[in-house]
Amino acid sequence: MMSESFSNPEELLKKYISFPSISADSNYKAGLSGAREFVVHLLEELDFHVEIVETPLHPIVLAKRHGDPTWPHIIIYGHYDVQPADPLNLWSSSAFHAEVRGHRLYGRGAADNKGPQIVHLCALANLLKKQPDLPLNITYLIEGEEEIGSPSFSQFLKDYQHDLSRADFVLVSDTCIPSEDQVVITTGLRGLVSLEVELTGPKSDLHSGLHGGPVVNPIRALADLCSSLHTEKGLVNIEGFYEDVLPVEDWEREELLKFPGSVDEYKEFLDVDAFFPPDGYSVHESVRFAPTLEFNGFGGGYQGEGTKTVIPSKAFVKISCRLVSNQESKKIEKLVKEAIESRVPAGIRANIKVHGEGNPYVVIPPNKPNTPEGQVQAMVDAFKSAEKRIAEVFGKKPLYLREGGSVPIIADLKDVAGLDSVMIGLFTPEDNLHAPDESFDLNIMKKGILTFEKIIGDLAGV
Amino acid sequence: MMSESFSNPEELLKKYISFPSISADSNYKAGLSGAREFVVHLLEELDFHVEIVETPLHPIVLAKRHGDPTWPHIIIYGHYDVQPADPLNLWSSSAFHAEVRGHRLYGRGAADNKGPQIVHLCALANLLKKQPDLPLNITYLIEGEEEIGSPSFSQFLKDYQHDLSRADFVLVSDTCIPSEDQVVITTGLRGLVSLEVELTGPKSDLHSGLHGGPVVNPIRALADLCSSLHTEKGLVNIEGFYEDVLPVEDWEREELLKFPGSVDEYKEFLDVDAFFPPDGYSVHESVRFAPTLEFNGFGGGYQGEGTKTVIPSKAFVKISCRLVSNQESKKIEKLVKEAIESRVPAGIRANIKVHGEGNPYVVIPPNKPNTPEGQVQAMVDAFKSAEKRIAEVFGKKPLYLREGGSVPIIADLKDVAGLDSVMIGLFTPEDNLHAPDESFDLNIMKKGILTFEKIIGDLAGV
Repeated sequence: MMSESFSNPEELLKKYISFPSISADSNYKAGLSGAREFVVHLLEELDFHVEIVETPLHPIVLAKRHGDPTWPHIIIYGHYDVQPADPLNLWSSSAFHAEVRGHRLYGRGAADNKGPQIVHLCALANLLKKQPDLPLNITYLIEGEEEIGSPSFSQFLKDYQHDLSRADFVLVSDTCIPSEDQVVITTGLRGLVSLEVELTGPKSDLHSGLHGGPVVNPIRALADLCSSLHTEKGLVNIEGFYEDVLPVEDWEREELLKFPGSVDEYKEFLDVDAFFPPDGYSVHESVRFAPTLEFNGFGGGYQGEGTKTVIPSKAFVKISCRLVSNQESKKIEKLVKEAIESRVPAGIRANIKVHGEGNPYVVIPPNKPNTPEGQVQAMVDAFKSAEKRIAEVFGKKPLYLREGGSVPIIADLKDVAGLDSVMIGLFTPEDNLHAPDESFDLNIMKKGILTFEKIIGDLAGV
Repeated sequence: MMSESFSNPEELLKKYISFPSISADSNYKAGLSGAREFVVHLLEELDFHVEIVETPLHPIVLAKRHGDPTWPHIIIYGHYDVQPADPLNLWSSSAFHAEVRGHRLYGRGAADNKGPQIVHLCALANLLKKQPDLPLNITYLIEGEEEIGSPSFSQFLKDYQHDLSRADFVLVSDTCIPSEDQVVITTGLRGLVSLEVELTGPKSDLHSGLHGGPVVNPIRALADLCSSLHTEKGLVNIEGFYEDVLPVEDWEREELLKFPGSVDEYKEFLDVDAFFPPDGYSVHESVRFAPTLEFNGFGGGYQGEGTKTVIPSKAFVKISCRLVSNQESKKIEKLVKEAIESRVPAGIRANIKVHGEGNPYVVIPPNKPNTPEGQVQAMVDAFKSAEKRIAEVFGKKPLYLREGGSVPIIADLKDVAGLDSVMIGLFTPEDNLHAPDESFDLNIMKKGILTFEKIIGDLAGV
């Protein structure tokens, strides 16, 4: 039944990357369906019963290998969509024709999230080869809209809530670790609100000599607006933005002190000569514990070579906020929109579009000072197995840290289906997520497959 | 000797526009040489002796029809280069395949400056047909770098200073009139400094989740920088910027009150609901008498559809300042550069490129309270003839107004060769200069040819 394809994870990953599954861009429908069909094919090879759940955009893959309902039941989550690949000219090799250089495999989605999915699937294939009757209920959930904020996932959760809430917890590998030998079990994710603001001044571009003076330039209006959104101390300058931010636990700050790598090494890695964390947070803390309002792109007016002396008609900015517990994305979305609307000057019209949003998430592992009572036993077992097996394979105990990234559906799974997540990171900062030359470390891939085979085995009690 | 081509000015202009002579973009060399050769051909048809003066970029056409050195001697100036045509999708017809709709001819360069050049050439052709021995020395100067700030013109002026300074004055039609029946004799032009600032933060685009917090986002740094360049009252916020600005003459403010069109009509024309002139200037005054610092284009980060949650590596802005007498462009360039450099935050590197610059210019017509002593007689005659002939043909006396646009070489001609300019406007705001759907009014073209035939005839005393 099971093909030999799982014995070559590197080739599997190359093939998966070859489908340009960019969810943000409507020109990539074929890439999305190709990636989806590829992962469906692998799940079917592992004897999963696969259902394709249609959504307004990119369908969700829901796959089940269910047996005795008294067995533990895990959900494994991943996403088959990827970030856009531009600027393409900064890639050293083709973004969708993966290439191995050294111990890395380069391609868009290599680390986020196709590589980690191949790790899970190969670990499971190896285990099922040895234990075809593995006493574990497994539900696979692979979505296609993660990189655009999972807009269809809440409706899916509502529709399948009854089904999904029977599971014990969710296993995810879509978070970051600091280095090849230091795995992190991620205990929190930032939420996200992303929106776009377009400002319009005059009805068309104007000659800046014949009209420059009285006309409100949309670029200037946008610069003023953007500049107004942070204080001089780097905090987000919107009333109420920090209102619901929870204080950081002492053990979290202590755990972070074990984090390898100094601020100077971090500077060197990014090639910057200074950092500017918001007031009250250290450099490393600000990524994990502080909310942000970030500008992801802006544009307006003449973009070509040399000069063109125009006052442009329009200017836009793409904004995303990262949120921390217990900020609510809907509330922050409203605050940001209202702040922007109230700061648009006369002479300019604003159009604000919300692209997506999701709540932040925190899970407190077993045996911490504030661990909640009555955690699900299978999840407690998973945390314990993970700590042990990671130490065995990687040579070091994992750290328990919140992370700066967002996987918005993790909070949704908790809010709607009552499911917590055990998040075991597999990619490193060197993997260049969301950037040119994204890659995945083949050593981590190998060790990851071994680790997950053991953890899943532990959960099944085999 | 003279072909019939001058009898169809509309066809001549269509042909001239068909050469895409975009000086800002190095991809348009062929369009520039095509336009240059076309105008050379026309001058040769009118028996001019043509010299092509090489420059580092686009050669200058220098053409002479000289006779008795005691005749009056005029220089006629124009430029064969045009602005870039983008955004191309906003044009109703092809930018370089001119089309007549109603009484307008649409195409890039129709009004700026190819149409007015065709007016001069046809007027001269008509006159020379009647008076082949016209007792007037004429030097034609047609450059190809006006739209990028004429970077080669100063060197040309130095090289040909002796030659050019023998002329009496310069005749130019590269300025604006408010309507089809109200011609303006332009008494001043704003100067120009244009530059580009590129800010670099991290060495490549970063995942805004994994790194958002401590990293200084170049878009935010650029927004702060741009926002800092104006005060809340709309004045340029750079120390010393206004230091050399001359007070406006009373007669200039009074002349401006005769200007047709209300502020409400201007709002409606541009489709804006409010203006924001700098403190101390009315809406109409600010265009003509106030210096500006304008953002012509900016960009950075993700430009595609939807969202991409990156912190970009780079962001840029294109800036141009319009200057008024007696601001000096070199001094303003230095002030602006220094202000920008001093405002770049830690964590960001700035690269500033200057694209071009030119001084502002003022000429006071005869019989005004502060008219200087000893103005050149031929120029005084030209002002008088222009006032009379414009009134005859257009039905209204011209207004004497400074204008917001820049023709940097006009100040250079004064500074280096001692030549003042008589500037008779021929295009209107409806002509959409530097913008999509640029056009030229064919009624003005017709009346302009008649007017210039009479003025040039008057100067020659025929």
